Amino acid sequence: MLSKRFQIQSGKLIETIHSTAKLGAHGVWGSDPTQTGVKRLALSDLDKQIKDWFIQETKALGCSIKVDNVGNVFATYPGKNNSALPTGMGSHLDTQPTGGRYDGIYGVLSGLQVLRTLKENNFVPNYPITLVDWCNEEGARFPMSMMASSVWAGICSKETVYQLKDVYDNKTTVEDELKRIGYLGDIECSHSANPLKCHFEIHIEQGPILESMQRKIGVVDSAQAYTWIEVTFMGVAQHTGTTPMEFRRDALLASSKVILDINKMAKSHGGLATVGKLDLQPAVVNVIPEKVTFVIDIRHSDDVAHQEMEQEVEKILKDAALNTIGNGIPLEVSSRTLYKSPVNKFNKDLVALIESSAKEIVGEDNLHHMVSGAGHDSCCTNRLIPTAMIFVPSKDGISHNPKEYTDPKEIELGFRVLLETILKYDSLRTE
Amino acid sequence: MLSKRFQIQSGKLIETIHSTAKLGAHGVWGSDPTQTGVKRLALSDLDKQIKDWFIQETKALGCSIKVDNVGNVFATYPGKNNSALPTGMGSHLDTQPTGGRYDGIYGVLSGLQVLRTLKENNFVPNYPITLVDWCNEEGARFPMSMMASSVWAGICSKETVYQLKDVYDNKTTVEDELKRIGYLGDIECSHSANPLKCHFEIHIEQGPILESMQRKIGVVDSAQAYTWIEVTFMGVAQHTGTTPMEFRRDALLASSKVILDINKMAKSHGGLATVGKLDLQPAVVNVIPEKVTFVIDIRHSDDVAHQEMEQEVEKILKDAALNTIGNGIPLEVSSRTLYKSPVNKFNKDLVALIESSAKEIVGEDNLHHMVSGAGHDSCCTNRLIPTAMIFVPSKDGISHNPKEYTDPKEIELGFRVLLETILKYDSLRTE
Repeated sequence: MLSKRFQIQSGKLIETIHSTAKLGAHGVWGSDPTQTGVKRLALSDLDKQIKDWFIQETKALGCSIKVDNVGNVFATYPGKNNSALPTGMGSHLDTQPTGGRYDGIYGVLSGLQVLRTLKENNFVPNYPITLVDWCNEEGARFPMSMMASSVWAGICSKETVYQLKDVYDNKTTVEDELKRIGYLGDIECSHSANPLKCHFEIHIEQGPILESMQRKIGVVDSAQAYTWIEVTFMGVAQHTGTTPMEFRRDALLASSKVILDINKMAKSHGGLATVGKLDLQPAVVNVIPEKVTFVIDIRHSDDVAHQEMEQEVEKILKDAALNTIGNGIPLEVSSRTLYKSPVNKFNKDLVALIESSAKEIVGEDNLHHMVSGAGHDSCCTNRLIPTAMIFVPSKDGISHNPKEYTDPKEIELGFRVLLETILKYDSLRTE
Repeated sequence: MLSKRFQIQSGKLIETIHSTAKLGAHGVWGSDPTQTGVKRLALSDLDKQIKDWFIQETKALGCSIKVDNVGNVFATYPGKNNSALPTGMGSHLDTQPTGGRYDGIYGVLSGLQVLRTLKENNFVPNYPITLVDWCNEEGARFPMSMMASSVWAGICSKETVYQLKDVYDNKTTVEDELKRIGYLGDIECSHSANPLKCHFEIHIEQGPILESMQRKIGVVDSAQAYTWIEVTFMGVAQHTGTTPMEFRRDALLASSKVILDINKMAKSHGGLATVGKLDLQPAVVNVIPEKVTFVIDIRHSDDVAHQEMEQEVEKILKDAALNTIGNGIPLEVSSRTLYKSPVNKFNKDLVALIESSAKEIVGEDNLHHMVSGAGHDSCCTNRLIPTAMIFVPSKDGISHNPKEYTDPKEIELGFRVLLETILKYDSLRTE
């Protein structure tokens, strides 16, 4: 085990998690000061503050900094061979509006702890190591998940994301905010302009599987396919007191049928389907909803089954438009795919490296090979460069919630697996 | 027919409807300038403007004006016996955010046209006649329907409604806005301080019944019972991609089941049940909704059946809390009644007077005895004083929608029935 000879400051990582969580502490769920979530929306003032802090911390370790023109921050710790591509690791520091203190943050701060450990041990790696804070992974404020890693990986254009609008004011764009907070960098956001050799990411599981199996480390073989489908039903706004049931064209009734039907459909396919966001018009107690818009999130670990689910959604929508009306003509229904990602299979060699590190640190009985339920920046980097992920347990499977929690011992074990993996990769890689 | 000897300006009423609709014209649905709805929310600047206009018009006819301390405006046309209580008629000039140009407005402007007709014919009634613009009938901006007529009738207190908050900013109160627009009058808002002898109201049907039966006038015998029940489901916010279906506690899934179940329930009882407003938290595409709040609007023309529906709602809520979860504990569900009104039976003598006027003007085959589906200010006045209503057809039964429409000929016929009824009442009443 390469990390065995390193002095490691136990507890420093969780201390950093807690101290930085003050930038955006939100959603108190217990009496301890660490029992809050974090609300740090992408490109907000708080996001600027955490980016500034990240740069300051990594600079202090001797890192050189690059900021690209979609707000990604790359901190590169020098190695012996600085003309070679850097080994990459990273995640994100932005959160959901109801976020916890681990999602994404744990990955970046574990990477930081790896660099601190190298520095404290005066260790010079063979190759440079770049830690990335990917911009707007959550897509909560500007509605595109893994926004800036998608641009970096060539999945979508810089111009497209510049025009994304703040969902809270429907006005401010990504470009506006990048400029305002000073993170419209001068490096082109692309793998070709600013390449990495590979990408490692450690993350909380955000689901209940490791906890229920009592395993400490998830070795992530792949990330499931997912699609976001935006649906709009158009009915007729009518008075709730004067419109007999058989005369109605109620857009919310149709939407409700869809929500129940996709739930059954997902169960029958062994996949996932959810509606998390739904908007009504006119949204008045005594007016039948005329227009309802919502997004269906469907996921499956198998591409074929995922496609079958997509096809069933179409049938479910048509059925709801036809079978929730009274004597009238069917509701209008339209749908469009906002985002689609196939199953992401991670690089086998990197997965094997993580597995071997995890075996050494937690033992074979404490690791579990698994599929990532969520999308991650690693799903984007995986399109172009060898990528793999490490998971640690999430208490009660809770995430995107202030109560998100991972035991400090598990936090530390995950970091040690990352450190060992980075050291192994550095020692084994050839240019 | 008493109105036979009156010179009547045909078309003046519809002209007034169209000209005043410019104050808040909203929701274009056709190329003609009259093909818009009206958005004139209670206590807004536009509501102030229409109240100012109403006062100016009625003063010009010789009316005296009273403004009470909940924003109701009373315009009294003098009679021979001005110490007697005035004959009342009225409705409201505020609208829904997606309102049309007839709902409420038609009632006030028909009353205005009655007073104009008296004036133009130099007719002095036996008793004074008061036309009322009731404040905030819609309850769209400040969430209480028939707000100020409820206070006037002693159904709720002035203090309660003063504290109601603007649903759009959750801050500004009714009291704030009454002061700001200058309609916190010095007359106490109550029947005892400012009494009326009776109340007549003409209104569009807002439903499809008269049109489908090809009748011109609805003689309204009663208004159906209704209840607004606010429901909150609390589940757990979890990641949509990482939480297996069997681990979920999805507040929107439960709410959707309720929406479908109350629909079936209403049909089986011959009543109405609707959800028009629904709020999600956290309302993010990839987070399972933790908290969903919505209001169930249930109505029935029979009090016993209405009560049975209320009891079934309780069962439906419990069932949804239990039967939409995975392996977890049931969702938390709470409900509270926001508003409840029993069946309102209108005064038989006044209904008979309307029936006789309608027979003379449109003939027996063109009138229909009916139940009001909606609540109206008349439901409040009916608690204390003899009250009755007249309906005219609504095209396609559409209301609370910019496309609300009544044929100008039907608009005119309704007004003539109101005029004849007011004249008959004035001639027949004794102090």
